[in-house]
Amino acid sequence: MLTVLSVKEAQRCILESLAHKRTGMENIPVAASLGRVLAEEIVALEMVPSFARSTMDGFAVRSADTFGASESMPALLNLAGHVLMGAAPPGNLQPGETMSIPTGGMLPGGSDSVVMVEYSETFGNQVALYRPVAPFENTIRQGEDFQKGDMVLPAGCLIRAADVGILSALGRLNLKVYAQPRVNIFSTGDEIVAPGEEPKTGQIRDINGPVLCSQVEENGGVAQHRGIIADEEEELQKALLESMEDADLLIISGGSSVGTRDVAAKVIAALPEGGVYFHGVSMRPGKPVIYGMSQGKPIFGLSGNPVSAMFSFILFVKPVLRILQGLSSFPDFNPYVEAYLDTNLSSPGGREDYIRVALYQEAAAEGKEGMIRAKPLFGGPGLLHTMVQADGYFVIPRDVEGYPAGSKVKVYLF
Amino acid sequence: MLTVLSVKEAQRCILESLAHKRTGMENIPVAASLGRVLAEEIVALEMVPSFARSTMDGFAVRSADTFGASESMPALLNLAGHVLMGAAPPGNLQPGETMSIPTGGMLPGGSDSVVMVEYSETFGNQVALYRPVAPFENTIRQGEDFQKGDMVLPAGCLIRAADVGILSALGRLNLKVYAQPRVNIFSTGDEIVAPGEEPKTGQIRDINGPVLCSQVEENGGVAQHRGIIADEEEELQKALLESMEDADLLIISGGSSVGTRDVAAKVIAALPEGGVYFHGVSMRPGKPVIYGMSQGKPIFGLSGNPVSAMFSFILFVKPVLRILQGLSSFPDFNPYVEAYLDTNLSSPGGREDYIRVALYQEAAAEGKEGMIRAKPLFGGPGLLHTMVQADGYFVIPRDVEGYPAGSKVKVYLF
Repeated sequence: MLTVLSVKEAQRCILESLAHKRTGMENIPVAASLGRVLAEEIVALEMVPSFARSTMDGFAVRSADTFGASESMPALLNLAGHVLMGAAPPGNLQPGETMSIPTGGMLPGGSDSVVMVEYSETFGNQVALYRPVAPFENTIRQGEDFQKGDMVLPAGCLIRAADVGILSALGRLNLKVYAQPRVNIFSTGDEIVAPGEEPKTGQIRDINGPVLCSQVEENGGVAQHRGIIADEEEELQKALLESMEDADLLIISGGSSVGTRDVAAKVIAALPEGGVYFHGVSMRPGKPVIYGMSQGKPIFGLSGNPVSAMFSFILFVKPVLRILQGLSSFPDFNPYVEAYLDTNLSSPGGREDYIRVALYQEAAAEGKEGMIRAKPLFGGPGLLHTMVQADGYFVIPRDVEGYPAGSKVKVYLF
Repeated sequence: MLTVLSVKEAQRCILESLAHKRTGMENIPVAASLGRVLAEEIVALEMVPSFARSTMDGFAVRSADTFGASESMPALLNLAGHVLMGAAPPGNLQPGETMSIPTGGMLPGGSDSVVMVEYSETFGNQVALYRPVAPFENTIRQGEDFQKGDMVLPAGCLIRAADVGILSALGRLNLKVYAQPRVNIFSTGDEIVAPGEEPKTGQIRDINGPVLCSQVEENGGVAQHRGIIADEEEELQKALLESMEDADLLIISGGSSVGTRDVAAKVIAALPEGGVYFHGVSMRPGKPVIYGMSQGKPIFGLSGNPVSAMFSFILFVKPVLRILQGLSSFPDFNPYVEAYLDTNLSSPGGREDYIRVALYQEAAAEGKEGMIRAKPLFGGPGLLHTMVQADGYFVIPRDVEGYPAGSKVKVYLF
């Protein structure tokens, strides 16, 4: 029996075993890259924008020509032409000249700023400007968004909507990203039948297979459920071996009884270059998690209890999926909702306690917004309703024995 | 010119115009339902679990037979058989009898609890139990997760991983969900070319088309980019009309100049049963947003400035997408990261100010975790790097003129 680690120790063990293992790279269209992870550095090969633009409808000027202009003493400039959208200006601006320009229009050479149309009056060939402008006022300069040579996006960044925008601005159509990790999932247990089957007496339908597939999908992986395997060493070993080729990560779910837990650990240890790194983490729910490797591929043995398996996934499988797809193991910032406990809560101590909670907003009173309350959902790791009815969870650390009602907790949403 | 509304007024106007408009319903496999929205109520048609199960390896007993058992005075019970995983127990338990049972095994009739194997010793046909158990101890009762007739999931709920699990437990293979809203997107502007084209002098590549498609995708919609349209009323009107049939929502992007802004508003007003509901919201960035309808279909005209368009999307388009797909207009709880401003910040007042920030963690000192700092990214609504480099944003309300450095702000991540 291996020692039971703390959550942090277990996470460190996993990260060390993976070093900087990544999936392969692939080229995909930028238009399909949302949520994928960059496998190359994006450097601006051109200025963005590539020319100085007006941010207002008005008149392009040399700012110096407007200095001192006022309502009573406007600057009078010669109208030298009109800048049209999407076209080169009709020429350069000479001192004393101006051109009309629309928002987004290209500044003519010689101009450095734009006077808003609201502060102008046109008299035939002459334009009176009633306000001065500073250099660059009402313009975006060439390269003001990105200079040529600027690092735009580093390798390893998760592509968001704005990133798709800047890639488009730079004219990128394709992109090198990390492949989505392929995750093969096995449900084990003599009592488990597929959701489509009618369970006989003593049998139950597979919950963990579908749940784990969903969690993989939520976290950037591609899940393949490889079926339900009876609690037999040979059969499980054969299935894992067959599945190693086309997977970056294997998950065995089930084996909640002592006997079957041992089967998963034994089978992992007996795989080629196989080894079990830890077996059990001091947390609740989620204690019976097994982590091992074979031929450099990470393998998890998760509890058959769905709540336990889901928390093991959140704390241990998710960082592996992140690393494999080229991200850091943990996001830099985890958003949460602060809420106030609506009951006293004790914790046995000695292990991290993951409390599922339903959130609700108290009615507003006297013009003040009501507080957000967290209602703990109690129940063992086999009771799925504690997850279905929960909005999220918070953590009671190992050395804390509980919180009184009214305590402020940070709730991470599911 | 219509009046400029506050953000809240604009949102209320949108919600009222939509009432409870929804997309159609469709049947999909539960295995593909993650992130979709339930269009039916899920009531448990059977108990979950359908039979009482053991949560430990041990011995099924009538708890009364163990009362008073101790190390020195164990309860001695007759071993009446063995419960196997996934099978009906070999019979019912009579007073004074016990059966061995694995974790997940079905409790035999007559038993109400399980003594852990650790507190037992077997002598041939007799089992000594050294601890008493209470009724239901170490078991999950029949229906303890969900009783027959229990509401499991209400219509309108977003399907998460745990929900896929309970649907599988109930044997559901298919599900009625709302169709994903189809969103047709138009980029307008004489200066805009597709990202794959080489811009000529005065032209720039389309940014908003790809960004808006990504934002639609992130929020449960199906985006179709219908191309780039010149700033001409007739052409835009024709394109919108053609596109109405196969869309639930239309977005026109661009038209940042006064002239083109008017085009979008005019065109929307001239569509069949068309009308503009508002034109401009007192926020920064994102002021120049147009909302209207034609034949009951919502239509947005967003700024050509990408930052402006992205915030208009977050505040106004996203709630529409949520409603169309059967959700409430706003999530009940929005997670955030609390951070401390690293600089003084002033705001003009009179409008909501959406400040993009990069987050960073200060180095830990004296065993204390470092604070999370928010660094504002300054720049006009045309500068995309303020979005690319930002982790999220916070809001300065209309009646606040700024915050001093060190103020705590709630940052919503992009």
